[in-house]
Amino acid sequence: MVGGGEGAFIGRVHLQAMRLDGSAELVCGAFSRDVENNRRTASLLHVDADRCYESWEQLLDGERALPAEERLELLVIVTPNHLHAPIARAALESGFHVFSEKPAALSLAETQVLAATLARSERLYGLAHTYQGYPMVWQAQHMVATGALGRLRKIYVEYPQGWLSEDQAGQGNKQAAWRGEPSLSGPSGCMGDIGVHAFNLAEFVSGQRIGQLCADLGVHVEGRQLDDDGAVLLRTDGGASGVLIASQVCGGEENALTLRLYGDRGGLEWRQEDPGSLIYRKTDGPIQVLRAGIDQAWLCEAARQRLRLPAGHPEGYIEAMANLYTDLTSSIRNGKRPTVPGIEAALRGMAFIETVLASHHSEGKWTSFIAAEQ
Amino acid sequence: MVGGGEGAFIGRVHLQAMRLDGSAELVCGAFSRDVENNRRTASLLHVDADRCYESWEQLLDGERALPAEERLELLVIVTPNHLHAPIARAALESGFHVFSEKPAALSLAETQVLAATLARSERLYGLAHTYQGYPMVWQAQHMVATGALGRLRKIYVEYPQGWLSEDQAGQGNKQAAWRGEPSLSGPSGCMGDIGVHAFNLAEFVSGQRIGQLCADLGVHVEGRQLDDDGAVLLRTDGGASGVLIASQVCGGEENALTLRLYGDRGGLEWRQEDPGSLIYRKTDGPIQVLRAGIDQAWLCEAARQRLRLPAGHPEGYIEAMANLYTDLTSSIRNGKRPTVPGIEAALRGMAFIETVLASHHSEGKWTSFIAAEQ
Amino acid sequence: MVGGGEGAFIGRVHLQAMRLDGSAELVCGAFSRDVENNRRTASLLHVDADRCYESWEQLLDGERALPAEERLELLVIVTPNHLHAPIARAALESGFHVFSEKPAALSLAETQVLAATLARSERLYGLAHTYQGYPMVWQAQHMVATGALGRLRKIYVEYPQGWLSEDQAGQGNKQAAWRGEPSLSGPSGCMGDIGVHAFNLAEFVSGQRIGQLCADLGVHVEGRQLDDDGAVLLRTDGGASGVLIASQVCGGEENALTLRLYGDRGGLEWRQEDPGSLIYRKTDGPIQVLRAGIDQAWLCEAARQRLRLPAGHPEGYIEAMANLYTDLTSSIRNGKRPTVPGIEAALRGMAFIETVLASHHSEGKWTSFIAAEQ
Amino acid sequence: MVGGGEGAFIGRVHLQAMRLDGSAELVCGAFSRDVENNRRTASLLHVDADRCYESWEQLLDGERALPAEERLELLVIVTPNHLHAPIARAALESGFHVFSEKPAALSLAETQVLAATLARSERLYGLAHTYQGYPMVWQAQHMVATGALGRLRKIYVEYPQGWLSEDQAGQGNKQAAWRGEPSLSGPSGCMGDIGVHAFNLAEFVSGQRIGQLCADLGVHVEGRQLDDDGAVLLRTDGGASGVLIASQVCGGEENALTLRLYGDRGGLEWRQEDPGSLIYRKTDGPIQVLRAGIDQAWLCEAARQRLRLPAGHPEGYIEAMANLYTDLTSSIRNGKRPTVPGIEAALRGMAFIETVLASHHSEGKWTSFIAAEQ
Repeated sequence: MVGGGEGAFIGRVHLQAMRLDGSAELVCGAFSRDVENNRRTASLLHVDADRCYESWEQLLDGERALPAEERLELLVIVTPNHLHAPIARAALESGFHVFSEKPAALSLAETQVLAATLARSERLYGLAHTYQGYPMVWQAQHMVATGALGRLRKIYVEYPQGWLSEDQAGQGNKQAAWRGEPSLSGPSGCMGDIGVHAFNLAEFVSGQRIGQLCADLGVHVEGRQLDDDGAVLLRTDGGASGVLIASQVCGGEENALTLRLYGDRGGLEWRQEDPGSLIYRKTDGPIQVLRAGIDQAWLCEAARQRLRLPAGHPEGYIEAMANLYTDLTSSIRNGKRPTVPGIEAALRGMAFIETVLASHHSEGKWTSFIAAEQ
Repeated sequence: MVGGGEGAFIGRVHLQAMRLDGSAELVCGAFSRDVENNRRTASLLHVDADRCYESWEQLLDGERALPAEERLELLVIVTPNHLHAPIARAALESGFHVFSEKPAALSLAETQVLAATLARSERLYGLAHTYQGYPMVWQAQHMVATGALGRLRKIYVEYPQGWLSEDQAGQGNKQAAWRGEPSLSGPSGCMGDIGVHAFNLAEFVSGQRIGQLCADLGVHVEGRQLDDDGAVLLRTDGGASGVLIASQVCGGEENALTLRLYGDRGGLEWRQEDPGSLIYRKTDGPIQVLRAGIDQAWLCEAARQRLRLPAGHPEGYIEAMANLYTDLTSSIRNGKRPTVPGIEAALRGMAFIETVLASHHSEGKWTSFIAAEQ
Repeated sequence: MVGGGEGAFIGRVHLQAMRLDGSAELVCGAFSRDVENNRRTASLLHVDADRCYESWEQLLDGERALPAEERLELLVIVTPNHLHAPIARAALESGFHVFSEKPAALSLAETQVLAATLARSERLYGLAHTYQGYPMVWQAQHMVATGALGRLRKIYVEYPQGWLSEDQAGQGNKQAAWRGEPSLSGPSGCMGDIGVHAFNLAEFVSGQRIGQLCADLGVHVEGRQLDDDGAVLLRTDGGASGVLIASQVCGGEENALTLRLYGDRGGLEWRQEDPGSLIYRKTDGPIQVLRAGIDQAWLCEAARQRLRLPAGHPEGYIEAMANLYTDLTSSIRNGKRPTVPGIEAALRGMAFIETVLASHHSEGKWTSFIAAEQ
Repeated sequence: MVGGGEGAFIGRVHLQAMRLDGSAELVCGAFSRDVENNRRTASLLHVDADRCYESWEQLLDGERALPAEERLELLVIVTPNHLHAPIARAALESGFHVFSEKPAALSLAETQVLAATLARSERLYGLAHTYQGYPMVWQAQHMVATGALGRLRKIYVEYPQGWLSEDQAGQGNKQAAWRGEPSLSGPSGCMGDIGVHAFNLAEFVSGQRIGQLCADLGVHVEGRQLDDDGAVLLRTDGGASGVLIASQVCGGEENALTLRLYGDRGGLEWRQEDPGSLIYRKTDGPIQVLRAGIDQAWLCEAARQRLRLPAGHPEGYIEAMANLYTDLTSSIRNGKRPTVPGIEAALRGMAFIETVLASHHSEGKWTSFIAAEQ
């Protein structure tokens, strides 16, 4: 693991997620540039002192030098954004599989270079679009694909948070600080941090690709350099239209990612804060609420495989991320193609961010989606 | 009452609303152009045969001819849209107060003429923005005005319905038929029918005026002439931004008008389908759910005045409209200025519709709100 | 109307309910023993001064003296409990139909006498079990009767309120004062006031009769004479069992009457505070949420007849009571048997109260339901 | 670990729970009496073949023979109920700490013997009342203890499930089979399996002890030997009263454990199926919804220590159990007294089961709680 020292949020979640199902074991790390933090973290996480490296470069060198059977297999990247792509490329070139926090890179161009590296590498690459690990997201995807909504018309996806309502960075919040610094975070704040999750969810579940969009971004706290809020009108290649909302200044909101899709036969609604329920509104009968549970025989195989417990025993965010780990690590072991979001999602996501920024700065209404081919 | 014959939906609601609190009594009508329907409706509603008129023109003539103390006081207009303004103007000129279904007219220009007529008339004019009759909408307005949200940043208002998912007009639904015919309904379908409710609610509760917008309208059923769906990016004069969604093709949705506002101190959420709850998310404490009830001492005066029952005894849509009637008729009686939406809301609403249409046809991103001054 | 002067709660609701659908018109009253209050109420409600009587006895005399076509048809009784039966009997004997607040009387014996009077009278008698006026209660009843739950096993009904958490009577609340006085209220407080609503709902929807019960009543505020709280174990004649809870000292609760029934094929849940939703949990498929609306084709006829509006337009408590009025008055007009709760519900309800009291004072576990035959 | 072979449900959850926070590592096991199942499970769980034992007796012998620093520290018991106490006693006597599934034993007497063994052992004993691991349960406990409800009046706890609606045991469900067999499961079915969870939750959060109860148990499926359903009236030593409901035949219910407490100042409601929300109804202000999250500064320390993620990132059942593991294992390491439910909860729980059975068979209304002192 690179990153994830004391004070980091997401590194800890990765660790819990990989341990939950026993899909991976933490064997080495370069957790922090702060030598003391790095050492303390290694000790806390039971990583051998000689595999606690001072930098990611040393980690790759050190692990490559080990006998194949002792060596790191999968590198987890949980650093600030600007390091995601450089580390991922170096890791792939060193022969390691990669699981990276999003975004994959700071730009589409950098992502395309990463994609080329990956293509040459015969290694696997996973991207932590955690929300795609939720079982009921797969159930929704299945229902759309098998016609439960009829012809898809509308996609509404929103991701309101409130934690950046005030100037958290100025108040010493490290999470907020690097996210607000373009050289570390990339060209977009809110859209790059959470808008891209909403986008990924919308394309995954709908099975359609955004073709055109119209974006309006905002900055609501003085002194902040990057967008902390935005809304985007969408049109898909498949004839649907919709809206994507992402905001980190909705005072009082937690992490309310919500997806709604409507077709001529009905609609689906999924709320991340109540992830075990999927609401299916039909045009010709009562509302249905599908509930997560390995015992719910009417759920699709993909949803049930991602569940551990019978209905009524809530599973949450860590379980969703654990599903990504299980998916990726079992693919590493059995050679099958993983279903975890990978380089294609990375390319689409970065193209989304860049298209949104282009649209925001454009005076024209519609901006075509930037081609994201490798 | 003009309109409201058998098969009409909203006329019946008006009748129930005026009766609920005894604020008005139905004394005459021209309910339908169909002579038989007109007669049957009058009989059903206990309107004297000699005050059941064949046309609205005859109604105005006939009532004007009666002694002042027997005469109609307030004319209720529940016809298809194209007649709203002509009847309202004639009624005002005949000395009657008017309560009209929305939209006030087919165009902003026609509304401005109506406004001028009204200004000369010394009569009152009310517009049936029923949702503004809900007590918790007034509570929300009060809380925004008194700073519960701090500085307002975001306005999200949405109004998804599903009843026009299929070609209802082609299937003989009268409600759907006239709404789909531009000469009867006006230049917009969904935005004119329900988008304008969402707009009115957003401006009323936020206390801010939309200054610029960017609209994308859609038609999702073959053969339909008017928009059945749309989304609008908003910017207010007060520095807030947001999104307005209105759709009649969200298969499975009922009447899910929802308003959310966020400022730097918190957010408010109100859902018309659960109208007695107002969710207040604070940045510095637990979520609060304010509940409707005359016994809820912490509600504002305006909210409590619009309630009839203690908490836990649900009041609904008819009660909301009854509040508009009580407001207007008591103003008629006591000479005070009514708080029911009136000509200003009519002008703003028609300007909204025309601005949305202009934006939809524009290739530019932002369209300035059309000045709606009288 | 007898009762319903200023300061009364339920009289006002009756008035709104009868007006809502135009099912009845208030023509005379003895609203209060306080002469001034009586006069003011009559004036407020547009009742002619000469039909505003000083007592219910004078009202009956006065109305009987009028020509048949001008005379009162249906007497509404909204006084404190101890007057319900005496007035009802006198009214029936005077040839008037009766609609009475519950409980029908202060004892089962008194109710049996009333039943005998009614049987001789050829008049109709309705009892204000308002909750049975809700459309989705009829839908639930229909689904149980037609086998949606399979063999019924469990009945859970609860009615928590919080308004008597403190000594409201001592603080001058008139509603609380007479309810706490046995000579006015009857032998039970909470069970007689709201427990009997829960009981009526349970028997109506389940279609089964309670055969045995075990009750524990409580008094939680010093100085209070009557129970303000209780719980009852139930066994039905049909082999189901369950629990009835009623409390007026659940601090913070509003009016949370809730019914849940379970059989071997599924369960139903209805909450009065969200009366337009009926949750149907099936053993062999997703949860269903049936929603109130005249356009919901899958609802039973009885439910749809009790609705006024399409789905998504909330109807509430007043509408529920209006359904009782419409039911009773149309029966008066067309001679058909009403479905509004009547003397049978009155007898069952009083028997329930007396059985609960007997059980509470018993040291034995089970008390057989007192026979309530007329 | 003893038990937890293929086909077992709860063993897997224990494993995930101990791994989630890295609080314990599985080093040995006797997973199944079926040799093949035992071997496969060991291999699946990466347990060395030489520490996969054929019986729990061999496990204890084998581990005791190892050098202290390699030896098992904490024995997890996830067998059918009849083995819980024998294994726990032997383990304690062998010098191992114990974490046992509930119930602790088949009888109160057996539990008292276990308590005596424990008292002599200087080892720790934890009982898997998983629901007490939920953070918001601790928040509720804290609020009751610090007076948020004022004087406690009512305790309503219910635990409806539907999975035994049909004859699952007859259909080959192993979970259902042993639970239905008194010699393996103990003298009670539903009350022993889930009623005791509800009981434990009620006593823990209320801080009061049940002093008297009145129980009615039922068997709803032909051929079943043990209760699958029941309801209990409660009275506490502290003057509160209430109801406990537990059922496994509520067709369509999942795992809907719910606790509600009311005092003269307000009420609390917690639902296991939405475990991150705690509803606080106040008598003197709006409803509050407290939400789980390490960033929710107004939560008590005990709640925040049991959380991993910021608000809006759901944590669930496995996280709740992981909290029990973290609690117990950190106590083992630092010598502090654990807060995980232990022998006292075991004694109270078994006394509850025996009192309920005694009451069920009694014709008297109230049965005093059996003294559970060691």
